Amino acid sequence: MTLHIAFQGEPGAYSEAAVLAHFNSNSSGTAPTPVPCSSFELVFDRVANGNCDFGLVPIENSLAGSIHGNYDLLLRHNLRVVGEYLLRVQHCLIARPGAVLGNIRRVISHPQALAQCDGYLHSLPQPAGTDNSGVIIEAVYDTAGSVKMVSEGEDLTVAAIASRRAAELYGMSILAEGIEDNPANFTRFLAIALSTTPPPLDTPTTTESDSKTSIVFSLDNQPASLFKALSVFALRNINLTKIESRPYVGKPWEYMFYIDFAGSVEEKAVQRALAHLDEYATTLRVLGSYPRHKL
Amino acid sequence: MTLHIAFQGEPGAYSEAAVLAHFNSNSSGTAPTPVPCSSFELVFDRVANGNCDFGLVPIENSLAGSIHGNYDLLLRHNLRVVGEYLLRVQHCLIARPGAVLGNIRRVISHPQALAQCDGYLHSLPQPAGTDNSGVIIEAVYDTAGSVKMVSEGEDLTVAAIASRRAAELYGMSILAEGIEDNPANFTRFLAIALSTTPPPLDTPTTTESDSKTSIVFSLDNQPASLFKALSVFALRNINLTKIESRPYVGKPWEYMFYIDFAGSVEEKAVQRALAHLDEYATTLRVLGSYPRHKL
Repeated sequence: MTLHIAFQGEPGAYSEAAVLAHFNSNSSGTAPTPVPCSSFELVFDRVANGNCDFGLVPIENSLAGSIHGNYDLLLRHNLRVVGEYLLRVQHCLIARPGAVLGNIRRVISHPQALAQCDGYLHSLPQPAGTDNSGVIIEAVYDTAGSVKMVSEGEDLTVAAIASRRAAELYGMSILAEGIEDNPANFTRFLAIALSTTPPPLDTPTTTESDSKTSIVFSLDNQPASLFKALSVFALRNINLTKIESRPYVGKPWEYMFYIDFAGSVEEKAVQRALAHLDEYATTLRVLGSYPRHKL
Repeated sequence: MTLHIAFQGEPGAYSEAAVLAHFNSNSSGTAPTPVPCSSFELVFDRVANGNCDFGLVPIENSLAGSIHGNYDLLLRHNLRVVGEYLLRVQHCLIARPGAVLGNIRRVISHPQALAQCDGYLHSLPQPAGTDNSGVIIEAVYDTAGSVKMVSEGEDLTVAAIASRRAAELYGMSILAEGIEDNPANFTRFLAIALSTTPPPLDTPTTTESDSKTSIVFSLDNQPASLFKALSVFALRNINLTKIESRPYVGKPWEYMFYIDFAGSVEEKAVQRALAHLDEYATTLRVLGSYPRHKL
């Protein structure tokens, strides 16, 4: 039986590449079936309804920062985090077969992809027979969607920015690869599932060095409250890998804190740290423990 | 001489209301001149170039969270934070004079304002002579801009969501006020200036109880590094009011931390805390000390 994995975007999206890589390497046997969704909300809904076995959502990009809406969706849904995946984002310049780099006059993609290739786009040769204004840059809704648009036209002077996979999916040519200005461009994804779904793993790991746990909690607005909350980890040599704060809706200037740390809830030290945190926290929820993804 | 204050948006924007309230109450004599800018980047540029005396930018909303792009702009520009202002966001339903609430069929505004009035919009009476689908909701680029659009048309069945001031500026009618679903809707603004500009205050305050300081720093990616950084405040009873993390561009999964705390750099305890933090921090910059705004 194949696993159905919900992701946000069109076929060929970076999220789909992450689905195929994460669930292929983690589950035995049959390939996963990625299920495209038009919004992150729909990804969460499909998993919560049982229509999909898992969802995979981006939570953070190493250049652009956290995808805050997905932190809020984690809080609103009673799902469990069961895995993480780090994707190296490598952008390609993609055009119709027969197109030539020197003739590209217009480049379309998602605004963030365009921004991440800004230096490259400005270094492109002046298209033949044009004035000095360089290539025209145009924002569209989606990276994979921009390749689809190129494939549906006849124009050999227009190119899209997207993944290698998107080019292959639509039978397009790759004019250049790795065109992002900053190669340290990674997106971290979280795999989510119903609490009753077994994790998509052949060999669950529970040792400190290769597990991670995500939690969310709130604190009384008192002096040193965050310091005390972090002490429960520091005093037990538990290493934090990420802290994020989001507004506590209805309590202006109070926050929900999201923390990721090394270790699993199956370890004694982690259980003690969470019991200790519970003494300070006004709310505390463990989102899940899962194997750490190392690049 | 009037002060020129850069803000992002159209005349009638919530940012403009914040400019008028903050700089009227803080400076003696002449009224400030708000200078509309098409982007936050332009606000920072106009202050950095000396074209405007101050800028006022939203940094955080109590429902939607931080405006992360403005944290990044603070880091990229060598400006000083010289004040803060808390604005209670109260949305109005605004239409042409002569319009009647029961006849409104279409409501336009900025997506965030529409989302914040979602419950109200769904409670509106079914417009006369329409089927059961309720009012049509349509996103446009700006709250004040939506009022401008209503004022330029002739249609008595279309309404905008924006501030009371926007209604007055365009001579429009207010059909309903305070239509936001959650009344705990505040936006915090920061006033920015060149380091050489004196603060816009008649009576600068430097006591712990009514000052705040904003800093940004980075840490080595080591166990307990954030805990140690927070200890410099906790050990001196300095109260943190906000912590925010942003990606350290070029160092995946390392972060720049932005912290606001009670107290001024003119106080001995704060100076000692910052010297102590400097022992741990790989970079540290004081963005500014300024009077705390209490509602």
